[in-house]
Amino acid sequence: MKAILFDGDLKFVEHHPPPEPARDEALIRVRLAGICNTDLEITRGYMGFRGILGHEFVGIVERVNGPQQEWVGKRVVGEINCGCGACEYCLRGAKNHCPQRTVLGIAGREGAFAEHITLPVANLWEVPENLLDEEAVFTEPLAATLEIPEEVHIRPTDRLIVLGDGKLGLLASLGLRLTQADITLVGKHENKMKIARDHDIRVVFLRDLKMTKVYDVVVEATGSPEGFGAALKLVRPRGRIVLKSTVADKKEIDLAPIVIDEVQVIGSRCGPFGPALNMLSKRLVDVSPLITGIFPVDRAEEAFEKTKDKKAVNWNSDIRIKKNRKFSKKF
Amino acid sequence: MKAILFDGDLKFVEHHPPPEPARDEALIRVRLAGICNTDLEITRGYMGFRGILGHEFVGIVERVNGPQQEWVGKRVVGEINCGCGACEYCLRGAKNHCPQRTVLGIAGREGAFAEHITLPVANLWEVPENLLDEEAVFTEPLAATLEIPEEVHIRPTDRLIVLGDGKLGLLASLGLRLTQADITLVGKHENKMKIARDHDIRVVFLRDLKMTKVYDVVVEATGSPEGFGAALKLVRPRGRIVLKSTVADKKEIDLAPIVIDEVQVIGSRCGPFGPALNMLSKRLVDVSPLITGIFPVDRAEEAFEKTKDKKAVNWNSDIRIKKNRKFSKKF
Repeated sequence: MKAILFDGDLKFVEHHPPPEPARDEALIRVRLAGICNTDLEITRGYMGFRGILGHEFVGIVERVNGPQQEWVGKRVVGEINCGCGACEYCLRGAKNHCPQRTVLGIAGREGAFAEHITLPVANLWEVPENLLDEEAVFTEPLAATLEIPEEVHIRPTDRLIVLGDGKLGLLASLGLRLTQADITLVGKHENKMKIARDHDIRVVFLRDLKMTKVYDVVVEATGSPEGFGAALKLVRPRGRIVLKSTVADKKEIDLAPIVIDEVQVIGSRCGPFGPALNMLSKRLVDVSPLITGIFPVDRAEEAFEKTKDKKAVNWNSDIRIKKNRKFSKKF
Repeated sequence: MKAILFDGDLKFVEHHPPPEPARDEALIRVRLAGICNTDLEITRGYMGFRGILGHEFVGIVERVNGPQQEWVGKRVVGEINCGCGACEYCLRGAKNHCPQRTVLGIAGREGAFAEHITLPVANLWEVPENLLDEEAVFTEPLAATLEIPEEVHIRPTDRLIVLGDGKLGLLASLGLRLTQADITLVGKHENKMKIARDHDIRVVFLRDLKMTKVYDVVVEATGSPEGFGAALKLVRPRGRIVLKSTVADKKEIDLAPIVIDEVQVIGSRCGPFGPALNMLSKRLVDVSPLITGIFPVDRAEEAFEKTKDKKAVNWNSDIRIKKNRKFSKKF
């Protein structure tokens, strides 16, 4: 099958062996996949992953190795963490933290920039009929932003600031505005911040931002190692910083402000798919402005390059890899 | 008055102008003061403080500038943060975080390694009669360890590990064992760890510690910039790290494990004096083994040097500056 492989370099390959579903797994034909900042970080060494990248996708179940045949033919999105099913984390429903887990396109499992992937049937969510592929493909990153209120109590009276106008920062702003908290989005790109402004979210250019410690909650979604330092200059004493960025680089950090201001730093990764699909299908979040580019799989390298160009100014890109429909119908 | 001054170098001075209490402040004659790791860090550049060091003390109120004359003659300990009384933090009882605050011997206010200090009367706590000076002087650091359960829910079934067998680590272990959590203290010094072992606390030498992510709560009290990295290797996914150390050095840190494991990092500084005095006077914590040295104020430099020697192996020292009683009676 066609795939985008990372083996130290990023490359398109025409003939890669397709994956074979293990017991209770589904073989899924990918219709559309999105580039995440994590993919870019992997190409810089994050996680030490080698193989097919990609973990944001929508696809069709073609085959199931197991009794769950009712899934065949369904259009699905999928949770990316695959647990062992037997450890204390899996047994209490936290497979995202299974020490033996594989993660689609990130750790131990080939990803979605390919014609086919496999995932456990238990990871699948059927996509509501009223969603386009172009919307459903945002389920995974939107779920990741829903992990924020899953972990942190956001009050309707909180002053909240989101750092980063990349895909994650924008989705977090659009989603968290439903909490009624007072939200400010900080970014560097007029075209991206317009999306938030069109949703009645206050936007501030980084160069205009007053660095004062007044925010109850800071969501760090810059995808840059500098983001955490900025967050520490904005969070109020006893406030909370939610860390979303995973970056390959280490950064020299002064931890004393955390202690002095008694700040809480909360790491936040993958989130719940059910509420994310619900927000999309109920039209509570409109993701359509977030698609800036659509590419067939054999031009994915080009999409990566465009994404990296944007990255050069230190913010996530919202360019997305997409197989065009004509192309995906050939799968 | 006699005092220990830090002006880039640490020095004993025979004739330093005594402080004058402002309105609603008390003039206190110091009877005993303790060296804290923060004092050592200040001599390395932390906080940029210049002046008389010291913030752990017990003393006698000699004079009050205000109507609170009932305090004169009382033996007291004192909260070290002095707020403006008018900002949002002060108004809601969180003067520890007042942006205009002065902090005894740390920021904007001369400290307790001197014959006299001043503090607002509102900061004072009368010492119960059944406590010796040698016990009461531990109120401030014990209160700092009580800030841990003030901020973090410690469950009776939690596995908790305390890193560092210095004064703070020992006091945290002795105090937190009352929660019934399963506590392990990690250290490097047999003489210090014996104190915890004598209180039925499990102790492990750092060299023997298995670095596995199994602890629900990690208390980082090493006083070393390396402590945080160790904490990240010990905390379980979705576990909590309580940061107590304030160090002058910056450290290169990989933040990704915080995100991947969805760890919470909670900065923790000064704590409540009332419960600390109660724990001491009810004999729930025995601090007497923690005093290893007692020095008159004019030999405080020597005490600092001894403390630094211990520090050379990267852990807090429990050596304490103390004016001997004979000497203090001369004040």
